[in-house]
Amino acid sequence: MIYLRVLFEGEAHWAVQEGDFARLLRTAPYEVLDYDGRLVPLSQCKLLAPAQPTKIVCVGKNYRDHAMEMGGFVPQQPILFLKGPNTLNHPDCPISAPDFVTRLDYECELAFVVKKRAKNVRAEDFADYVLGYTCLNDVTARDIQSFDGQWTRAKSMDGFCPVGPVLTDEVDPSNLTVTTRLNGVVKQQGNTCDFLHPMGDLFAFITASMTLEAGDLVTTGTPAGIGPMEKGDVVEVEVENIGILRNFVE
Amino acid sequence: MIYLRVLFEGEAHWAVQEGDFARLLRTAPYEVLDYDGRLVPLSQCKLLAPAQPTKIVCVGKNYRDHAMEMGGFVPQQPILFLKGPNTLNHPDCPISAPDFVTRLDYECELAFVVKKRAKNVRAEDFADYVLGYTCLNDVTARDIQSFDGQWTRAKSMDGFCPVGPVLTDEVDPSNLTVTTRLNGVVKQQGNTCDFLHPMGDLFAFITASMTLEAGDLVTTGTPAGIGPMEKGDVVEVEVENIGILRNFVE
Repeated sequence: MIYLRVLFEGEAHWAVQEGDFARLLRTAPYEVLDYDGRLVPLSQCKLLAPAQPTKIVCVGKNYRDHAMEMGGFVPQQPILFLKGPNTLNHPDCPISAPDFVTRLDYECELAFVVKKRAKNVRAEDFADYVLGYTCLNDVTARDIQSFDGQWTRAKSMDGFCPVGPVLTDEVDPSNLTVTTRLNGVVKQQGNTCDFLHPMGDLFAFITASMTLEAGDLVTTGTPAGIGPMEKGDVVEVEVENIGILRNFVE
Repeated sequence: MIYLRVLFEGEAHWAVQEGDFARLLRTAPYEVLDYDGRLVPLSQCKLLAPAQPTKIVCVGKNYRDHAMEMGGFVPQQPILFLKGPNTLNHPDCPISAPDFVTRLDYECELAFVVKKRAKNVRAEDFADYVLGYTCLNDVTARDIQSFDGQWTRAKSMDGFCPVGPVLTDEVDPSNLTVTTRLNGVVKQQGNTCDFLHPMGDLFAFITASMTLEAGDLVTTGTPAGIGPMEKGDVVEVEVENIGILRNFVE
């Protein structure tokens, strides 16, 4: 199933993709699919971030090669951080930073949306709690990250979390290529098979501390190759078999 | 004005306190006071955390004496972090931690609730954006904080943010004594006049990066004297002229 969140005739809807059409839903597809009866052409829809999270839980340094480029320290356990809901951003929308930011980086990631409340979930049960997978750009003010030490401010500026374009349960999350392209040039590439902490372990680790709610967004870390974006750049995060999340910097 | 959030006859309501009574509201008191006509005795209400935040924005090391006890580094700028909405906890409710946590600390803080959307607010305008002030316990798994380096997991476990008992706009936030008592013994005490970054400056700093929404909770850091709690302890966070936030550890 491929889930969408679309703006159609001025209103936001959850939907299910059927070819070139979106079948609109009355409510979020966490528990049931409550169709409202309309099948509308995608050409008349604008795609929105397919997530309405109460929180966005992120994992730092989950690929060995990125941990090495960030200073060589490979954490024994996942390092968690949060992005505020103010960061949520949409496909084809601008990314911008306050004037005081001097280095604005892309970070391509595989993310997923939680299907139902999750607390103390065992690693082997994690797939039961996933609504679907999507692409996420963990935009980071790298200068602020270095200055602050704590990552929150650098990663929680408005619009610093583009997500999309679709949410799908039709992929195997343990073997997906994740890529960043900047103005068409590949800058980052990794495969989720190289995770330091596989998806189920991450999920068990997070839910041992935090209850996840239906709709929450969890992202899984970025591979090596991080780097800066400039105004006017077009940045694409592609996850194999999911899609391309395209944004521009202004 | 003293705002409450109460559980009355099994339903949660915002309310305004009038002596020993709560005047119930239909909606959150961010823009208007929409009374539903009922005036109910506080004795029939359970007080809830007076906040429904989309995010909880916190400041580390905002009192010089606490910065010194945490290692002597006094930050030039506020250090921001987020607590997830899963941390929100209520007066007189239990605080508990997962079994793997070996040191669970109190941190008394003055917090405030945002009244309306705030972005790029000037320090001198900050009071226009505050609905009221309350007490907050920034519960922290100190062992996890040290282990992770990033503070998120240590500070975002379920129930790690007791708030209350009331929200008031009848105090001067620049001169309030903030105290923690553990089983009746004073453990932490400071005065907000000793902030490294005064309230208006904090607010301007935060809103330069993040849009705050009506209902968001912002907390302002803790003074020296942090320390651990054990199962069975009663912990009280008191802010002068606001009230006493009491919880117990289980």
